[in-house]
Amino acid sequence: MFEVVQDYSKGAAYVNGAYVPMSEAKIPVGDWGFVHSDVTYDVVHVWDGMFFRLEDHLDRFHRSLEGYRLRPPATREQMREILARCVALSGLREAFVAMISTRGVPRVYGSRRPSDCDNTFIAYACPWVDVISKAVQEKGAHLWVASMPRVSPLSVDPTFKNYSWRDFVRGLHEAHDHGYETAVLLDSAGFVTEGSGFNVFAVKGNVVMTPDRGALEGVTRRSVLDLCDELGLEGKIMPMRIEDLMEADEVFCSTTAGGVMPCARVGNATLGDNIMANDRPGPISLKIKALYWQKHKEGWHGTAVNYADPEHPLMAVKTAA
Amino acid sequence: MFEVVQDYSKGAAYVNGAYVPMSEAKIPVGDWGFVHSDVTYDVVHVWDGMFFRLEDHLDRFHRSLEGYRLRPPATREQMREILARCVALSGLREAFVAMISTRGVPRVYGSRRPSDCDNTFIAYACPWVDVISKAVQEKGAHLWVASMPRVSPLSVDPTFKNYSWRDFVRGLHEAHDHGYETAVLLDSAGFVTEGSGFNVFAVKGNVVMTPDRGALEGVTRRSVLDLCDELGLEGKIMPMRIEDLMEADEVFCSTTAGGVMPCARVGNATLGDNIMANDRPGPISLKIKALYWQKHKEGWHGTAVNYADPEHPLMAVKTAA
Repeated sequence: MFEVVQDYSKGAAYVNGAYVPMSEAKIPVGDWGFVHSDVTYDVVHVWDGMFFRLEDHLDRFHRSLEGYRLRPPATREQMREILARCVALSGLREAFVAMISTRGVPRVYGSRRPSDCDNTFIAYACPWVDVISKAVQEKGAHLWVASMPRVSPLSVDPTFKNYSWRDFVRGLHEAHDHGYETAVLLDSAGFVTEGSGFNVFAVKGNVVMTPDRGALEGVTRRSVLDLCDELGLEGKIMPMRIEDLMEADEVFCSTTAGGVMPCARVGNATLGDNIMANDRPGPISLKIKALYWQKHKEGWHGTAVNYADPEHPLMAVKTAA
Repeated sequence: MFEVVQDYSKGAAYVNGAYVPMSEAKIPVGDWGFVHSDVTYDVVHVWDGMFFRLEDHLDRFHRSLEGYRLRPPATREQMREILARCVALSGLREAFVAMISTRGVPRVYGSRRPSDCDNTFIAYACPWVDVISKAVQEKGAHLWVASMPRVSPLSVDPTFKNYSWRDFVRGLHEAHDHGYETAVLLDSAGFVTEGSGFNVFAVKGNVVMTPDRGALEGVTRRSVLDLCDELGLEGKIMPMRIEDLMEADEVFCSTTAGGVMPCARVGNATLGDNIMANDRPGPISLKIKALYWQKHKEGWHGTAVNYADPEHPLMAVKTAA
């Protein structure tokens, strides 16, 4: 078969059943994924040539698809192969790997019926992204508590991953206006929910708590709770008020695109024993972060990519206890 | 200048500073307009070769841009010309004409700062769309009252036009499951808001009421209120409960993409004097609808498109009292 040599150095994508360079990965302006935010997605990372918890991300992606009644034209097995092939084509050893399904464009022109749309499957692997930059992670992020409430789970279920980020974007604007790096949102009853693409944790004594409502059930969140067990800390999923953040010893965020990201300040409070003196990552956050990456090196929940043969892009699953 | 003859019969679009056929109008999968629904838009219609209330739509679009802090690379004057040129290129005498601004793709790879993005301006003219099909409009739409609340205005302001339609899409699914054509959503306090792309009106006696909250300030809504004055009806923007819909003499919807669209049933109630016998558009709805189109014929708020010269696509504004 005739094959054109493509430049995948900025990432490789799978769109409309074909592999293309990232720059060519586009969707029609009439796709409901754009005009109605009628889309779900998931992101898995590749670190040192290995997917991290690939099956957990595929599990959640399928729950989201079910929740939104999306039926993309790819089986789970095909998705796994496509994702791995995007990574192999890109040659990236550290990558941000997305799987997306949009409602698509109606078959019947102008139809307002979701059932008239052919759902899509899009995937891509592009260079590693940190939701909070590595430089900021080092000194500890400043986390703004946004004034607008998170969209209610009654309207949009946050456990089905979605691109409905209008509230988050407002929160980011507000955070940046105040010189903070990112924002966390409360729900309308004042409970802590999540930030734009990350879960939030507060540390108080031996307890490492994360909200029980209004938040995505993060894969990295789950990893953090696993690591708490290993470190003899008490991980707790529980209702959290703003006071739990403001009066915490430490706060950190977790996400696939960045891992465990320590904070140094929440709202107008610096964190740590000496409230006014500290403005840096806490020791427990740093310990969890170090173990998170240490275990990556050991192949924890890893699935190796076969870069040498993009036609057979997945190697045997490599696991470590 | 060398010019390729393009097929604009399915619509003409303006993307990335160039005019292209509708099929080529696409956005990158990394555009925040897609991945964060960080986008605003407006839709104006062309009927019999004339824009309807073009300046009102441009006014609202600019309010939305301001509300979302979007700065597209086009002045209002340029937008007006671009929209008209899309229509002229398409040759469509009846058209659905969209103007869109997305946050764009970050200039700094992986950045989570809105200020690192170059905002876009996209426009297109494509064939006429009815939010509720003409056939259904004839017999009167069946309007479902959805079980999920509309996203709170505290989280996402509905007066700034947005594509955050996750709640609406759920409402559509629910409506279609029950054999209804479309859905209206209540807010969390039980007040009527709006449907997916349309305002709602209830008629009781001489009063024609529409919700005062949780809804877009529709241009067609404003036209309907103007027509009420003309017809000696009392148009009222007011708080509306579900009972105001269920116990109304008549209900209709209004939108740029379809005009005045009568309903025949709301939830499980048929409308009209004889609740169980009627299942058809009410006489006042039909009167408003007829006047709405009659006045279009007279050039009401019309701006004519110059199809003969797409380089100078706007003719002098033609107005009627």
